[in-house]
Amino acid sequence: TRIKHLKKTLGINLLYATISILLVIVAGPMASSSGIPEVKGYLNGVKVPNSLGFKSLFGKIFSLIMSYSSGLFVGPEGPMIHIGSAIGAAVSQFRSSTFEFYPKLFLQYQNDRDKRDFISVGAASGISAAFGAPIGGVLFSIEEASSFWSRQLTWRTFFCCMIATFTTNFLLQGFGTSPDMHDTGLLTFGFSRLYLYRYSELLCFCILGVLGGAFGALFVFLNIHLNKWRRDYLKKNISLRSIEAIVVMVITSVICFYSPSIFPCRYQSNIQVEPSVCEDQTNAQMEQFFCPPGMYSEMASLLFVNPDLALRRLYSRTNNSFTLGVLLVFTCIYFFLSVITSGLWVAGGLFVPMMMVGAGFGRFVGQVVGLWFEGIDASIYALVGTAAMMAGYCRMTISLVVIMVELTEGTQYLVPIILAVMIAKWVGDFFNESIFYRGQNGEI
Amino acid sequence: TRIKHLKKTLGINLLYATISILLVIVAGPMASSSGIPEVKGYLNGVKVPNSLGFKSLFGKIFSLIMSYSSGLFVGPEGPMIHIGSAIGAAVSQFRSSTFEFYPKLFLQYQNDRDKRDFISVGAASGISAAFGAPIGGVLFSIEEASSFWSRQLTWRTFFCCMIATFTTNFLLQGFGTSPDMHDTGLLTFGFSRLYLYRYSELLCFCILGVLGGAFGALFVFLNIHLNKWRRDYLKKNISLRSIEAIVVMVITSVICFYSPSIFPCRYQSNIQVEPSVCEDQTNAQMEQFFCPPGMYSEMASLLFVNPDLALRRLYSRTNNSFTLGVLLVFTCIYFFLSVITSGLWVAGGLFVPMMMVGAGFGRFVGQVVGLWFEGIDASIYALVGTAAMMAGYCRMTISLVVIMVELTEGTQYLVPIILAVMIAKWVGDFFNESIFYRGQNGEI
Repeated sequence: TRIKHLKKTLGINLLYATISILLVIVAGPMASSSGIPEVKGYLNGVKVPNSLGFKSLFGKIFSLIMSYSSGLFVGPEGPMIHIGSAIGAAVSQFRSSTFEFYPKLFLQYQNDRDKRDFISVGAASGISAAFGAPIGGVLFSIEEASSFWSRQLTWRTFFCCMIATFTTNFLLQGFGTSPDMHDTGLLTFGFSRLYLYRYSELLCFCILGVLGGAFGALFVFLNIHLNKWRRDYLKKNISLRSIEAIVVMVITSVICFYSPSIFPCRYQSNIQVEPSVCEDQTNAQMEQFFCPPGMYSEMASLLFVNPDLALRRLYSRTNNSFTLGVLLVFTCIYFFLSVITSGLWVAGGLFVPMMMVGAGFGRFVGQVVGLWFEGIDASIYALVGTAAMMAGYCRMTISLVVIMVELTEGTQYLVPIILAVMIAKWVGDFFNESIFYRGQNGEI
Repeated sequence: TRIKHLKKTLGINLLYATISILLVIVAGPMASSSGIPEVKGYLNGVKVPNSLGFKSLFGKIFSLIMSYSSGLFVGPEGPMIHIGSAIGAAVSQFRSSTFEFYPKLFLQYQNDRDKRDFISVGAASGISAAFGAPIGGVLFSIEEASSFWSRQLTWRTFFCCMIATFTTNFLLQGFGTSPDMHDTGLLTFGFSRLYLYRYSELLCFCILGVLGGAFGALFVFLNIHLNKWRRDYLKKNISLRSIEAIVVMVITSVICFYSPSIFPCRYQSNIQVEPSVCEDQTNAQMEQFFCPPGMYSEMASLLFVNPDLALRRLYSRTNNSFTLGVLLVFTCIYFFLSVITSGLWVAGGLFVPMMMVGAGFGRFVGQVVGLWFEGIDASIYALVGTAAMMAGYCRMTISLVVIMVELTEGTQYLVPIILAVMIAKWVGDFFNESIFYRGQNGEI
């Protein structure tokens, strides 16, 4: 039955990946990758042709849905920024060169300055909706996206981000079960707030910051060289590009399917939940996969599920749900597959893959520290590792901290997150520049 | 014994208030009030003489300690912004016209641009330390204080704010009992996160926003007219100004001392704590004052204690610790005494008094709504009312929201806070301008 399962999985993934690639071929290469460098470029005066047109917009939306479903290691958050910007451009200009549609309705906004402002606001709304983080969205636009900023724009962006978050929230509630309000985006993870770390652990968080910065810089180095190679050898050759994406997809699926078999099954009942008085958010329930009843597969619990769920498991407040070996292998697999995935001709961002890598090595470090000292909660290390890894590859600072705080719904871990983010940025900046300075798909 | 107690209280308060006034007289009127308008003015190109000098700095620090201790309705948070700015100016320039000290050490920073940047960063650090809110501090500088902003400055400000928060945190830990880390500023209140509001309650939060905007605008109107009167009739006459401050201090002390007697004592055991599974943060323990054992005085629990504790009681997760009449009288007392206090020749800000007013009418509205509907938690109304009132008088938006989130240590109430803040700003802007646009002490 295992082969049958693999065939089924591969078949479905192949279908989705093919549609995703076709959409990029039809809509043009601007629909691929995350599009953040193009948006940044536009806001700083470099207009990449067609980067914010209707074709790129629709190509990106549907290619993203398909590539995310195909099991490729891509995240939906980065492209949301591009989608938001393109919508901002479309709404404000109310004209289209694609459709040769030029009404005289919004003439007053058809100047460079207003267009740029709308695009900034759109980018901020995109990230707000993606992370359920209205304040993080505003800060992203202030810190990363825009070179020109006015006080008025802060207030307008904030308004728009709030509406975006609220709408996402409202729509997600409609598909959920709870009648209560809860601020959530595409990605959510609750985080119990009872456990406090100790002063001495701050040193470990600094180490996580150094690791995050180093891995982030390594990621940028590898990815940029790979994309240079792509630009020089694959060029814009449609068949080569399609084959490349399909090959990566097949490798990803096969690894995700077979790597769980390398590690032995473990007993679900052996998982020790931290003595958490309050919330029932331990996320201790794991994946059975091909294990006998009552047992679970560690690797399948991380690789063969929705990334959202895998992240929540990495943040789970348990002591021994994962072994060190699995965490190490998982982190390496995710790191190298993300390197080769980023830059393929499919839509998809890097936020979620980098969060997975960060959470993986963070939890690894936390469990290693836990071998020597008592009372170490590895879930906090996973959280801090996530922040460090993200800061290491994209060099965001304050906006990243706010997004992490809004994701975890608490400010309790503010100090470790800030510490790790700052150190990761310093270490990363020592080696190279942020990934946003280079086009991810090798077109810039 | 009551008269004896009053005499003692009055005597101590009189001593503190006198010292506070003397310090302002010696250091000049720039040491009085919060100093936020002066900092704003400086950062926008209007240099008020001596506003950031050594004399103002030391005068403000010690006058603030004395006025806050004297029982006057002033808060320490606003002046922290001025203090931070003055330190920023002093550190960066490393010269003083007061002491005729002009070394050639930091010549490279002795230009207008760098000085302005250091002052921005100082203001942000001040607010970060005051509220334990590193991100709120950065946003305050971006949104309120500065007209000129660069991306580089974001990162530098953030760094400085983080160090400021961390230092405050560290020093406060030293005086506390817990060896754990916890992000706190001068003002802290924990807030249990288990209770969720319902969609229908958003309408009530909108009403709180309207009320906050209206009361805020009324406060600005009354305070500015009073300060005009002060400027025209009291001028800079030292004796008139001193008598005025002493009179206000005596009125405040007498009201705080005698108003509890108007209301009957209540049984401590009657307080119903909300069924809160998790944290022991109900703050249900009240003040006995002159009541018999086992009973408490509602008004004394709010007026005759540290504002920090009073705020925590207004946010307490209990059903019936305060009656409607007490809340109404308390809010009115605080509102009108704050109007006449702001602008006296003592140092002191408005953040805490306005938070008290907001929490007071918020809880009042929450309890009124609770008369009709079941399952209303008045503490959330108090929190939202606080945000609305603050937005209503100073018209901050995103920085205020972030500060509130960092104070409550959770993002669960983000949507209601944002909603109330936006509506309060709109309503307030309909009537008049923010209080920061006018000098509070009538000197500008």
